[in-house]
Amino acid sequence: MTPSPLPVIRLLPKTKPQAIRRGYPWVYANEVVTDRRTRAMTPGTIAVLEDAERSPLALVAVNPNSKIIGRVLDGPEATAPDQDWFAKRLHKALSLRERLFDAPFYRLIHAEADGLPGVIIDRFGDTAVVQPNSAWADVLLPELSAALAEVTGVTTILKNAGGRGRSLEGLDDVDAVLLGDAPNAPVSVHMNGATYMADLMGGQKTGIFFDQRPNQAFAAGLAQNARVLDVFSHVGGFGLAALAGGAVSAQCVDGSEPALALAAQGAEHMGATERFSITKGDAFAVLTTLGEEQAEFDLVVCDPPAFAPSNKAREAGLRAYERVARLSAPLVAEDGYLVLCSCSHAVDLTAFTGACLRGIGRAGRRAQLIHTGQAGPDHPLLPQLAESGYLKALFFRL
Amino acid sequence: MTPSPLPVIRLLPKTKPQAIRRGYPWVYANEVVTDRRTRAMTPGTIAVLEDAERSPLALVAVNPNSKIIGRVLDGPEATAPDQDWFAKRLHKALSLRERLFDAPFYRLIHAEADGLPGVIIDRFGDTAVVQPNSAWADVLLPELSAALAEVTGVTTILKNAGGRGRSLEGLDDVDAVLLGDAPNAPVSVHMNGATYMADLMGGQKTGIFFDQRPNQAFAAGLAQNARVLDVFSHVGGFGLAALAGGAVSAQCVDGSEPALALAAQGAEHMGATERFSITKGDAFAVLTTLGEEQAEFDLVVCDPPAFAPSNKAREAGLRAYERVARLSAPLVAEDGYLVLCSCSHAVDLTAFTGACLRGIGRAGRRAQLIHTGQAGPDHPLLPQLAESGYLKALFFRL
Repeated sequence: MTPSPLPVIRLLPKTKPQAIRRGYPWVYANEVVTDRRTRAMTPGTIAVLEDAERSPLALVAVNPNSKIIGRVLDGPEATAPDQDWFAKRLHKALSLRERLFDAPFYRLIHAEADGLPGVIIDRFGDTAVVQPNSAWADVLLPELSAALAEVTGVTTILKNAGGRGRSLEGLDDVDAVLLGDAPNAPVSVHMNGATYMADLMGGQKTGIFFDQRPNQAFAAGLAQNARVLDVFSHVGGFGLAALAGGAVSAQCVDGSEPALALAAQGAEHMGATERFSITKGDAFAVLTTLGEEQAEFDLVVCDPPAFAPSNKAREAGLRAYERVARLSAPLVAEDGYLVLCSCSHAVDLTAFTGACLRGIGRAGRRAQLIHTGQAGPDHPLLPQLAESGYLKALFFRL
Repeated sequence: MTPSPLPVIRLLPKTKPQAIRRGYPWVYANEVVTDRRTRAMTPGTIAVLEDAERSPLALVAVNPNSKIIGRVLDGPEATAPDQDWFAKRLHKALSLRERLFDAPFYRLIHAEADGLPGVIIDRFGDTAVVQPNSAWADVLLPELSAALAEVTGVTTILKNAGGRGRSLEGLDDVDAVLLGDAPNAPVSVHMNGATYMADLMGGQKTGIFFDQRPNQAFAAGLAQNARVLDVFSHVGGFGLAALAGGAVSAQCVDGSEPALALAAQGAEHMGATERFSITKGDAFAVLTTLGEEQAEFDLVVCDPPAFAPSNKAREAGLRAYERVARLSAPLVAEDGYLVLCSCSHAVDLTAFTGACLRGIGRAGRRAQLIHTGQAGPDHPLLPQLAESGYLKALFFRL
């Protein structure tokens, strides 16, 4: 074999290479020889990872500024990613989504699980929004963009630099238009029979989250003739799906005026304005008021932001989830449905279920658990990364 | 309060009543005062459970022959179950199923989670199959049957006494026709666009399992133009769903001749005989042969019987699951799908996933996990009973 022209990083003798061989995608800074040469590497450098005996293990992207110093990109014989390399990964990801969905609205690339570590790409018809949340992808963004246009035929590519991961990688937060023209109006997204309005230029705050799609579909299946309350509604994810499912009414509660305005636009597109209402306010305050008014719904959904974004926030997060359950359960009619969601990495399914049950119990109610939802299949997991299974949607019947 | 006319069983002073108060449905024999009077109770006796201070906690069904000596039926003020009591529980269960499904084919009662401890009722249109797997339900079967006919309008009720639970409760294994006439031909069951033939008189061996319905639907969504292999196919659960989803071919493998004959009848009903084939044989042997022949499929499903029905069988079960994964992964085309299922209580999701990954890895393949399926929503869980979440269906892309 000819010697590799790529730079090399090397595992410490104490670091076993088995995890990498079995497909674990990350190398931590304390697992490699961090000599001056390694520390001096530009963030995003493509290198070969070797074990302590100098056997090549993998092609990696190096970022000396990150705790995750190396991200596995490919096998040890691979060359540095070019447009063709990206095109292959995108083709593979696309063929899954085209099998799963009738229309081109989905998460196209879900980071490590789709072979592009730290990269998120959401597709909205002819427009793609790329989140390059790791340094290597920021460096290779031109090649990635070119491949993306080639493989999918999208005519607009937006860079969203708002991801939390970027600051951990020492990257800036400057959005950009990489291809085509920035959309000057919200985009219509059709899912589960509903129409959502997504403001792709407003960042995550008023875009669309595709991950709840199967859970919104399940909720829609419970919504026929139901009075529905969608708390932390964002642009109407569950509320509009419930309208499509035949709800007699859907009330969306959120703290964001722009998100609620988009929800109302969605309801208008669906011709469902008469069955739709919005309430702007703090969700806890609104739930409390509705409880005092003895309001009653057949289906209540609470899909709050991550109350436990980190392990440090875990206990406080669990208390918040319990409070959501305690305040929302009394609003559910006898034999009605309560859907409680968590997108907190730091709270696992068992802990989240426990918090929900405590809250429901304190409200004096008993529950059946009829369904446990997760992120949709356009959010695949790398089985080696347990962390990836973040979304939980518990469907209780009270 | 007037004294209860019902017999009483009492928790030992060391047994905390909190679990029961929070909805835990079982009382173990070593938690109660088992004096001569308690030991002499007829299996199925309805009694009041009291805490050590003689405060009533719950209405329970007592079986001194079972490790689970008491099963909570209702609150402490309730009277012994009569036809009306059963009708209420059945109404509640029915209203969930009618919301979930277009046609009356489903699990109507899923034991504790539907408020009828130890009772399973599956509905096939006008016919219901009851499994009274605990003593109290055997005793009250006339009231239960009458309520079932009243609430659902079924004209045939069959008693299936083949459940494993019955022997733990000291009950016989004698099937019976409780209402109407025993069907003299297999019943057609329509699910996920497929037609299944269920022989309700042949016991579980050739009936239908409703629990895989959402997983069969998900597999059908992957099946367009796919070559499909359904191993441990039973009456064709995944294979026929895949045909309905547009598979170019479906091959069902099972050890049971009668089950495969019913699968073939289903394919015939669907007008899909030309795309359908059956292979009778030991699944491991058939997988090995197919591997030697370098057979290739786009979608392979393995839904074996419980390899780990008890904790004692756990390690052997995990090895069997790993072997299934190792033998089936090589049959999956590049970018194809492998669905691995487990219905073993003793193997949790993490352990099962680990076994599957080891098997896939030993076959030299890497996997994305695109979906983790569970039993359908007509199999609700009592959240207090972690044991109830038995079914796991992992959808890998290789």
